Amino acid sequence: MEQSSKKSALSEKDGVNQPQSLSNSSVEVIKQMRRKQPSAQELIDGILAKDKVALSRAITLVESTNPEHLEKANTIIQACLPHANKSIRIGITGVPGVGKSTFIEAFGKHITSLGRKVAVLAVDPSSTISHGSILGDKTRMEELVKDENAFIRPSASGETLGGVARKTRETIILCEACGFDTIIIETVGVGQSETAVHSMVDFFLLLKISGAGDELQGIKRGIMEMADAIVINKADGDNIAKAKLAKTEFNRALHLFPAKQSGWIPTAATCSSYTKEGIDTVWKTISDYFELVKTNHYFEEKRQNQNQFWMMETINEQLKSNFYNHPEIIKLLEENKKAVQNDEISPFAAAINLLGKYFKS
Amino acid sequence: MEQSSKKSALSEKDGVNQPQSLSNSSVEVIKQMRRKQPSAQELIDGILAKDKVALSRAITLVESTNPEHLEKANTIIQACLPHANKSIRIGITGVPGVGKSTFIEAFGKHITSLGRKVAVLAVDPSSTISHGSILGDKTRMEELVKDENAFIRPSASGETLGGVARKTRETIILCEACGFDTIIIETVGVGQSETAVHSMVDFFLLLKISGAGDELQGIKRGIMEMADAIVINKADGDNIAKAKLAKTEFNRALHLFPAKQSGWIPTAATCSSYTKEGIDTVWKTISDYFELVKTNHYFEEKRQNQNQFWMMETINEQLKSNFYNHPEIIKLLEENKKAVQNDEISPFAAAINLLGKYFKS
Repeated sequence: MEQSSKKSALSEKDGVNQPQSLSNSSVEVIKQMRRKQPSAQELIDGILAKDKVALSRAITLVESTNPEHLEKANTIIQACLPHANKSIRIGITGVPGVGKSTFIEAFGKHITSLGRKVAVLAVDPSSTISHGSILGDKTRMEELVKDENAFIRPSASGETLGGVARKTRETIILCEACGFDTIIIETVGVGQSETAVHSMVDFFLLLKISGAGDELQGIKRGIMEMADAIVINKADGDNIAKAKLAKTEFNRALHLFPAKQSGWIPTAATCSSYTKEGIDTVWKTISDYFELVKTNHYFEEKRQNQNQFWMMETINEQLKSNFYNHPEIIKLLEENKKAVQNDEISPFAAAINLLGKYFKS
Repeated sequence: MEQSSKKSALSEKDGVNQPQSLSNSSVEVIKQMRRKQPSAQELIDGILAKDKVALSRAITLVESTNPEHLEKANTIIQACLPHANKSIRIGITGVPGVGKSTFIEAFGKHITSLGRKVAVLAVDPSSTISHGSILGDKTRMEELVKDENAFIRPSASGETLGGVARKTRETIILCEACGFDTIIIETVGVGQSETAVHSMVDFFLLLKISGAGDELQGIKRGIMEMADAIVINKADGDNIAKAKLAKTEFNRALHLFPAKQSGWIPTAATCSSYTKEGIDTVWKTISDYFELVKTNHYFEEKRQNQNQFWMMETINEQLKSNFYNHPEIIKLLEENKKAVQNDEISPFAAAINLLGKYFKS
């Protein structure tokens, strides 16, 4: 259809011309703004000067899929690295409904009142579909969002947990360089996201609410073993007695697990994000933990292990991704899977076949 | 030293000649035998005719590091595959001292008495060092070894668990084609060997003895969750009361774990390999399990998943092995690890560096 004919469902009558849908002057202003992207150096200077706007923009580069942005992001991360690592990193997990946002708001406010600076990040690989369910709705943390010493950033999106995890790890570095000394990373129990968060934090907190008495049922495999503390939230009003019972049961269950490498003995506690009762005790527990692991040097050891883990993990993921996305392998893999399923070939012989083709090409 | 001078600590006096240390006729006989290596087809025919000697020789080929032997092994496995898979596979784990050998002897004798044919294999990656600690000393299963319907084979040796696991998986195929309808795979709690065995069996049994009352302490992480049954051995004489207490405690602990995908509810039981008390109940439990999973089709589903798992596992291990054994990577990896440790480079940037070099070369 030609431009000049102006046929549109909206131009009902001939002679009644539609107004221009674009304002030329606005376009100019937007173009002007786009041109003023800050340089990597400007962002680095901003972050180190504790400017939250510069921090936000740098994180946007980390989350971008544009190779040019990623290169810029890498320059910024590289410059921030010497200023990072001086925080404590706390992971918080809990299924929807346990009140993660209200807990983080109450907990965050408590620690900023102690003079700390807190950054709240999230790992939620499902956010690509749900458009950032965790922390997406910042109004759920109304008070913390307004706090000058707090920084809240919703989960990065990405197709894989590995991708989201990488972005969050790099965001931690930027937040730390920007002067945040307490990093909170929130996650929900989606897939392996707890394991990913566990491998990027120093302390891992499992948030629960008291239920119908069978508290231990329904906890995902392995989560209890990862927890450094279990906090039963919503211990207020009629819930107090139930929450205390749940605490006893969790303490007993925690006792069954083998001792932790950190030397730390995990415990259960109750709190109310509404009355704020117990919030200070949670912080006290976490402080005790850090005193212990900084004294026995588990802190540095764990961080170094985590760094090595992420290096190896990235390599291993990339090696697999290269293989499984190879056009010929995609085709042959299906055939070989079927042959293995029908007992026409052993799993090992199939693997050797595929590897042979891959390395030849 | 020259041959003709015949100087030896054993020839004390000149003039008293030592007898020839080799009998020439025996040498000829041995050479003759060596030449008569059976062909792949002969071994296949032997296995399918239920000949245990042919089975043993084929397993030796599977375990060989000689590429020619491996090729022959692959031909045999390929031919055996259509005749395999018709057994039940039981994994048994337990730390040294719980009486694994005596249990397997008593249990094995019980099931051969029911008309079944049982093959006992082992996965022990430490056997390269300890020269086959598990099942190495066949005399520990004196009765079973003499049983015509039993076949016992010590652990393959290998430098990696992956290697040992591959050999055991392939040996299972050969045993099944040879008519063994019950495969028992023994392992000790060395490294990840339980996980490897768990992923090649249908039923996983944890063998324990009653201790000082704190039965649950000291169980390796994750083992309880893998177990389809816990059997407390040595429940005889003065031990009976303690064993019954342990059984109660294990039953309670098993209850804490989430439901199994198989629909099976794991339980604890006691038995004595000495008085044979309870051995029949263990077999009854295992039979019940197989009735359940064959009815609800979990049996086939799990085997297919296991096959796919082993195919992918072999691929992933090989991809990593190729990378980490690449001469340039070996050198660069150390440098990059150090740089990551000193916060000179982020784990991701280091990974990308290394991958770039690898794929370029």
